[in-house]
Amino acid sequence: MLTRAEAPAVASLGDLTEVETPALVLDLAKLDRNVGRLAARMAALGVVLRPHMKTAKSREVARRIYPDGYGPITVSTLKEAEYFAADGARDIVYAVGISPDKIERVAALRAQGVDLVVLLDTVEQAKALAASAAGPLAALIEIDCDGHRGGLAPDDATILTIAEILAKGGVELRGVLTHAGESYGCRSPQALEAAAEGERAAAVDAAQRLRAKGFACPVVSVGSTPTSHFARDLTGVTEVRAGVYMFFDLVMHGIGVCAVDDIAVSVLATVIGHKPEKGWILVDAGWMALSRDRGTSRQAVDQGYGLVCDIEGRPYRDLLVSDASQEHGILSLRPGSGETLPDLAVGAKVRILPNHACATSAQHEAYQVVGAGAGLARWPRMRGW
Amino acid sequence: MLTRAEAPAVASLGDLTEVETPALVLDLAKLDRNVGRLAARMAALGVVLRPHMKTAKSREVARRIYPDGYGPITVSTLKEAEYFAADGARDIVYAVGISPDKIERVAALRAQGVDLVVLLDTVEQAKALAASAAGPLAALIEIDCDGHRGGLAPDDATILTIAEILAKGGVELRGVLTHAGESYGCRSPQALEAAAEGERAAAVDAAQRLRAKGFACPVVSVGSTPTSHFARDLTGVTEVRAGVYMFFDLVMHGIGVCAVDDIAVSVLATVIGHKPEKGWILVDAGWMALSRDRGTSRQAVDQGYGLVCDIEGRPYRDLLVSDASQEHGILSLRPGSGETLPDLAVGAKVRILPNHACATSAQHEAYQVVGAGAGLARWPRMRGW
Repeated sequence: MLTRAEAPAVASLGDLTEVETPALVLDLAKLDRNVGRLAARMAALGVVLRPHMKTAKSREVARRIYPDGYGPITVSTLKEAEYFAADGARDIVYAVGISPDKIERVAALRAQGVDLVVLLDTVEQAKALAASAAGPLAALIEIDCDGHRGGLAPDDATILTIAEILAKGGVELRGVLTHAGESYGCRSPQALEAAAEGERAAAVDAAQRLRAKGFACPVVSVGSTPTSHFARDLTGVTEVRAGVYMFFDLVMHGIGVCAVDDIAVSVLATVIGHKPEKGWILVDAGWMALSRDRGTSRQAVDQGYGLVCDIEGRPYRDLLVSDASQEHGILSLRPGSGETLPDLAVGAKVRILPNHACATSAQHEAYQVVGAGAGLARWPRMRGW
Repeated sequence: MLTRAEAPAVASLGDLTEVETPALVLDLAKLDRNVGRLAARMAALGVVLRPHMKTAKSREVARRIYPDGYGPITVSTLKEAEYFAADGARDIVYAVGISPDKIERVAALRAQGVDLVVLLDTVEQAKALAASAAGPLAALIEIDCDGHRGGLAPDDATILTIAEILAKGGVELRGVLTHAGESYGCRSPQALEAAAEGERAAAVDAAQRLRAKGFACPVVSVGSTPTSHFARDLTGVTEVRAGVYMFFDLVMHGIGVCAVDDIAVSVLATVIGHKPEKGWILVDAGWMALSRDRGTSRQAVDQGYGLVCDIEGRPYRDLLVSDASQEHGILSLRPGSGETLPDLAVGAKVRILPNHACATSAQHEAYQVVGAGAGLARWPRMRGW
């Protein structure tokens, strides 16, 4: 028998048998691989990668990405901005439209030396920023590239109106930002490449129109996990944002962005019962541990509430979490499957790959990290607003 | 103008304009009314109510229900048991099937004087309890009344096998427990009454079969929020469990268990943008604040990600959260509605009633409590396992 010092790195997986369930597991080797893959891709395309911390919400994950000190990051809440700023982040884009009552918190971070840049797409927001006495502010104008959510069309005259209001009010216009949210609905590499090009073109178009009117617009920010992996040309773009790429998930696999084996997060669960007459295995991970996200229900392959793996992360063919209540998950075979149920006794442990890494991870207080050394590490997550 | 002391109780709603969003709001008057309604109903039917704390996960809510000291409660996780026990709870049912690795934590609470009772429905679990040297344990056998999830049919011989294993192992058999989970799919008072009667009959049948074999089976525990509100007769039942009844939600309204006006929790959000050409209003509450729960999508009236109200909690007719991303909600009118969009400027606040109170509340760290005094109170929530 090997001693711990002699054991191979994967031996730390064995420690998962001792973890109380349900629990969120993070595979560090897969995280590193995913992070390295997009970093290399962005470097080859000549743009800055600005990782979106809304998925991981963890200082330890951020430090893994930036072992030599923080580079640029994106956040989805001011509390994320405050949390990462307290850990050393100094270059942050808050990529959700600013509301007037949040300006004071933004200014407070900027007063501490954090270059926190806000997002807007209305004249009302521009006026609120311009009228603020809270200190020098900086903003990006949100551009709509695919009708997904917010933002202004590149040729919308409101963009110039906003730029003028900001300029008069002493607010720095940093540039433009867009997000190809519709890329999550793409079903082919061609469609993903087209979504990436549409995202690039809309942002560059808006930036050029601003520059033609005398606004410098140094930043042209685009990004989503699907488009960042399929963009072939990013001419005119200065930075790319992505978040779920660190972990990946079954939705990303369904789109064709990653392999199942790339998914770095899973929910560890314990078998608590059986219903053999129904072909059910019951586990102690329900929607509280998995989230209610059913993103793959709109894809070609519906993965239920998640795909079930053994404790080492190897998927059982066709075994899904077919239903979930608050603290119960029901495992059963995919309809029409020719497989047989694995023999999982009460007390046995499984790992469940999530539909949506952001949503599932948010249900947990911490990661149980596999591969960070001889044993398991515990990396906390932040939450709230 | 009224001073604070002279202002009516509802004036505290005005304080919501100062709350940072998104935030979870709890209306204390509605909580009290809901709690009082079911308590009166159970008293009239002659059974004990054992409130399920999985919905509120809050000591302050528990103390509101039990102002003179804790009575019986139900929990869905051992961490809930530990949290409420630390606050004084001494009579707790852990209503999720026990896994062998959790027995030590159960025994530790019991050693502190907490009558924590576990649930099981397999011979494997019975053997694990019987083999435990962790201290005297007590258990309920889970009965299946409607094929919803776990549990044994009342005439399943395994029930007696389990009872015998427990008896030989020195584990106290407290009785039987069932949950009419299928009642969430009922669509008429008649169907709900039938579900309640089915739940009662299954539990009483199982208890009688145990008693016929010499097992005392003092506890006959049933319950769900729908059946507890529609049961007409609970003969043979000793206690009823319910959780979401404290808050109610749009799913419960869709089933016919409550009025919209009974819903005690809502998510406060701020308008951050508009897409007039699409009929959209954007707010800063996405699925992170609302949860991914879309329970009403399977009901006659689909409420999207929630029904939108003004800051005082009055619904805008037909205004729903029609889509949600992590930190964005899109408000739009129900398809086919003849209403017009309300005039909500950037910075305006709304309150969103949830599909599922348990899931939405779980996304938040605390309640902003309206009606607990002159201003707002902050009541923390617990989480985890």
